[in-house]
Amino acid sequence: MKSAIVFYAAGESDANLYWATRFLTPDPYVFVQIGSRRIVVVGDLELGRAQKQATVHEVRRLEDIEKVLKAVGNKSPGPADVIASILIEAKVGRAEVPGEFPAWLADALRERGFEVAPKAGVFWPAREVKARDEVKAIEEAQEATEAAVERAIETLRRAKIRGDRLVADGGTLTSESLRRVIDVALMERGCVARHTIVACGDQGCDPHNAGTGPLRPHQTIIMDVFPRSNRTQYFADMTRTVVKGKASAAVKRLYEAVRETQELGIARVRPGVDGKAIHDEVQEHFRKLGFKTAMRDGRMEGYFHGTGHGVGLDIHEAPWVTRRGGTLREGCVVTVEPGLYYWGVGGVRLEDMVLVTRRGGRNLTRFPKFLEV
Amino acid sequence: MKSAIVFYAAGESDANLYWATRFLTPDPYVFVQIGSRRIVVVGDLELGRAQKQATVHEVRRLEDIEKVLKAVGNKSPGPADVIASILIEAKVGRAEVPGEFPAWLADALRERGFEVAPKAGVFWPAREVKARDEVKAIEEAQEATEAAVERAIETLRRAKIRGDRLVADGGTLTSESLRRVIDVALMERGCVARHTIVACGDQGCDPHNAGTGPLRPHQTIIMDVFPRSNRTQYFADMTRTVVKGKASAAVKRLYEAVRETQELGIARVRPGVDGKAIHDEVQEHFRKLGFKTAMRDGRMEGYFHGTGHGVGLDIHEAPWVTRRGGTLREGCVVTVEPGLYYWGVGGVRLEDMVLVTRRGGRNLTRFPKFLEV
Repeated sequence: MKSAIVFYAAGESDANLYWATRFLTPDPYVFVQIGSRRIVVVGDLELGRAQKQATVHEVRRLEDIEKVLKAVGNKSPGPADVIASILIEAKVGRAEVPGEFPAWLADALRERGFEVAPKAGVFWPAREVKARDEVKAIEEAQEATEAAVERAIETLRRAKIRGDRLVADGGTLTSESLRRVIDVALMERGCVARHTIVACGDQGCDPHNAGTGPLRPHQTIIMDVFPRSNRTQYFADMTRTVVKGKASAAVKRLYEAVRETQELGIARVRPGVDGKAIHDEVQEHFRKLGFKTAMRDGRMEGYFHGTGHGVGLDIHEAPWVTRRGGTLREGCVVTVEPGLYYWGVGGVRLEDMVLVTRRGGRNLTRFPKFLEV
Repeated sequence: MKSAIVFYAAGESDANLYWATRFLTPDPYVFVQIGSRRIVVVGDLELGRAQKQATVHEVRRLEDIEKVLKAVGNKSPGPADVIASILIEAKVGRAEVPGEFPAWLADALRERGFEVAPKAGVFWPAREVKARDEVKAIEEAQEATEAAVERAIETLRRAKIRGDRLVADGGTLTSESLRRVIDVALMERGCVARHTIVACGDQGCDPHNAGTGPLRPHQTIIMDVFPRSNRTQYFADMTRTVVKGKASAAVKRLYEAVRETQELGIARVRPGVDGKAIHDEVQEHFRKLGFKTAMRDGRMEGYFHGTGHGVGLDIHEAPWVTRRGGTLREGCVVTVEPGLYYWGVGGVRLEDMVLVTRRGGRNLTRFPKFLEV
């Protein structure tokens, strides 16, 4: 049976669709690919822009298709009818759709007699391998990231220790205020950060806790910054951990272990390696160094997250440097971000972005690593 | 058959799931509601944060469920197995899922013997009606929006006309630079704008064209600003149109027509009214005033978009003040944003956010309306 690829999603929220069309919309639109021929269907509101921007062979006007459908008796044609009319016209009986295709629409197409085959996991394997302009876009977002973290470091350096607080620019430094410094610096460079992490002490032991309240001297401060460029739509991702004041011996041990283990992980990056193998080795290395991972009082300690992930139009995408895995291919961009977290001691995470090249990993991150500021 | 509600989505990208759990994650997690009992399943990475933040009855550890599934012979349990194990335990045979539920997962649950019923359209009708704290969150985002547009207006006022350019702060004003002014002002207030529109002249005739290049004197400049609060996740939405210099008589006629029609639309907002009726009346009013809507040289002119939409955790949500419609209920927040667009003349759009109260519409937008700056 003849098959077509079908999407129904918003260009702004679906990276697979945006990758195929380079057309951003806040609302969902129909995309059909028959053989190598790509068609989008958009309403009058998006018509002019789609004609200029969408990298497809044909832009069809939604209102025209609806008119035809109404003429044949369909009073309120919806996306299923629009898709069906295109598939019937092209004598296509089967729709290959992304795993995230809306279940209601898959059912509606099946009711209309089509076979619908959702493809779980990676939809366009080619998306994992970045073209030169995609690497450049990621590097640009990374430059903004480094400038923003530099501004945060300057703020911390400028800060004075006053008891258990840090004071700078006339106020107490908090997770919120330092996050604002980072996010504004990113926006000045056209990059958007939605959940920048600035997490101090025990807060950093919950790796996705964004952090709240006053930053403390002599404690770990994790800054995990992962903005998206408003222009290119590509992400960058970097984490640094610092201590304002004096780091304890225990924190210094964590830091050195994480740095050493990260270097080991980065050194393993090369084409043909499975991300799971790197993750396993990173886990094993922490174990060898004597850092235990276990549940304590209902909370995890040690190393209990993945070692890395692909970065591109999604902040987390294939290939995975986790127990899930995936083969690293030349042109992939992945993070390497081991961490250690112990309640009462603090959290340390270091994250760089690495491009997989023929000769091995090329670190796209230039920002230095240091503990005390 | 006993039924449960099932989600598998990321809290950051699925407003329905976030509304139910108030738990933000970058990656998808399982949510099951049996009767009124709400359960989420998260991995170690999110466990501590979920226990603190998720407004659910139970947080289950993914690794624990996977351990049990592996013990009974499932080598690599996925989300379908995790959901199935919870449903079987609760003797549930049917899953009610949102329309956007991933098609692959719906199929995987069906293969495991469950009935899966995707609900197209609005999943939680209660989400349309905003509680007091939700209105407050929208108002806060709106305050940031008005401060940001005020900064753009100040920049335009400060600008000098030099030939066909505007010069301010030592450089040529462009769509990009004025957008940056707005976006940075929003970020300083903790709000994120991803596609702020600053579109001059004919560019504004494509209502979703974000605008590029130098801003021109004596031409329409549409500023459509719709940020999301990083703290509350709620959106605001406002549009103003101005001319730096002298507006032509034709532009003045557009502006007065849009202002008058917007006032008419806002005056129609009250509980029980269908959004479609307001949209129809706005369309009809433009027609009566003599403004024609039609295709010219393959491009639309006149009034060819919806009159408004609900605003909340999604920038575009029900109820719709469009041909799609939806009953306005007390507590809904909707935009009223008519516009007129003619190639060679320019585009004018005015947009306010209106809260539906017992007594009628309460305008949440305080920003004044004026054409020339």
